[in-house]
Amino acid sequence: MTYCLGLLVDTGLVMLSDSRTNAGLDQISVFRKMTTFQRAGERALVLLSAGNLAITQAVVNQLQRQVQAEPAAGLLAATDLFEAAGIVGEAVREVYARDAAVLKAQGHEFNGSFILGGQIRGDEPRLFHVYSAGNFIEASIDTPYFQMGESKYGKPIIDRVITRSSGLAQAAKCALVSMDSTIRSNLSVGPPLDLCIVRRDELRIATHLTIDEDNEYFRMIRNRWGLALQEVFNELPNPAW
Amino acid sequence: MTYCLGLLVDTGLVMLSDSRTNAGLDQISVFRKMTTFQRAGERALVLLSAGNLAITQAVVNQLQRQVQAEPAAGLLAATDLFEAAGIVGEAVREVYARDAAVLKAQGHEFNGSFILGGQIRGDEPRLFHVYSAGNFIEASIDTPYFQMGESKYGKPIIDRVITRSSGLAQAAKCALVSMDSTIRSNLSVGPPLDLCIVRRDELRIATHLTIDEDNEYFRMIRNRWGLALQEVFNELPNPAW
Repeated sequence: MTYCLGLLVDTGLVMLSDSRTNAGLDQISVFRKMTTFQRAGERALVLLSAGNLAITQAVVNQLQRQVQAEPAAGLLAATDLFEAAGIVGEAVREVYARDAAVLKAQGHEFNGSFILGGQIRGDEPRLFHVYSAGNFIEASIDTPYFQMGESKYGKPIIDRVITRSSGLAQAAKCALVSMDSTIRSNLSVGPPLDLCIVRRDELRIATHLTIDEDNEYFRMIRNRWGLALQEVFNELPNPAW
Repeated sequence: MTYCLGLLVDTGLVMLSDSRTNAGLDQISVFRKMTTFQRAGERALVLLSAGNLAITQAVVNQLQRQVQAEPAAGLLAATDLFEAAGIVGEAVREVYARDAAVLKAQGHEFNGSFILGGQIRGDEPRLFHVYSAGNFIEASIDTPYFQMGESKYGKPIIDRVITRSSGLAQAAKCALVSMDSTIRSNLSVGPPLDLCIVRRDELRIATHLTIDEDNEYFRMIRNRWGLALQEVFNELPNPAW
């Protein structure tokens, strides 16, 4: 499976993805699920993908070919994030038009969705969720995040600590705690992780890290969060029953 | 949906269930999912149910009719918990034999599963998970709990704090924290809750509570756990990126 997460706060965006794919338990591989599209000083976009790997790779490939054209088109030509989300949706629909019938004939669902976050000059930092049908929704003040894949394990901590006014560092920390809870409880999600931070109005990707088991900060999170949870849990009074 | 949880520790069992059922978002009702079978001093059994309500009610009804017979049969006659789990499985299969074909013809899955926990004189406290097919598995030293329904939100906290050597009060506290996380993140799980505690070798139900929004202990858990999580989260160092 997959766990991908995009958080939108007032000061920017945090995007995080795992890298485990599996076709059955005996076929587990590492494939990155994060792609970036950047023209420094003008735009920084981060795309996370989940679903059937052949579908998501075809979509990403299509989007990459567009930006490699001269003059650059696609995500590097979009005037705002809404238009960019539409371009991702169009790419999904092209792959759908080509592949869905054969997939269906062989009993497979057409299953590929995306989280797109970033900022384009003249526009706010924004976050979108693009579905398999190519349609999409945008994050709001009330729901400042999107998840894909194995989203349930890591949802409670986000619901409890993140609002639009959270800081970017806090959001990155929360994303990693959420990922840690998911990795611990679900075999189909695993490192290395890809983490991107886009700061408001910088119009470039501020941080792009690969985080593996040896990453010092993630190891600290994993150890201290688990211990702290146990402490807090032990400090809560037991029931009298 | 549903969230049900049974925890088996060295000193006994904690069983917890929500009471929300829904057939679509516009048909939400309260139905209890916990049934107890007790002969004080000899046996105490707690049964939790999840799935299609018509199926689970039919199974529970069948089990209750058996124990009301003279002389009592069924769960009140089982010589150990393994046999009791088999009796629950048999009841599931009887309902299957009667209802599954019609359900299938109308496009419905046969979907009803159970967690059975308790102790019968001469046997250990034990915990079983009975599936829709009437077969079942038993909890072990390594996996001392079973969940049904919306299990993912509340799984990380159990994985982090509960082992077979946890105390019963701790286990009850953990079950309520796990339920709280689930209720906060999923509309289809809701109070009132039913909570049962069976202490090793007491052979009667030690505690059987209905917990609603006004329950002082659960309210304390809800408030303090949320705040404590936020504090612990804030105390974790932010990343330097």
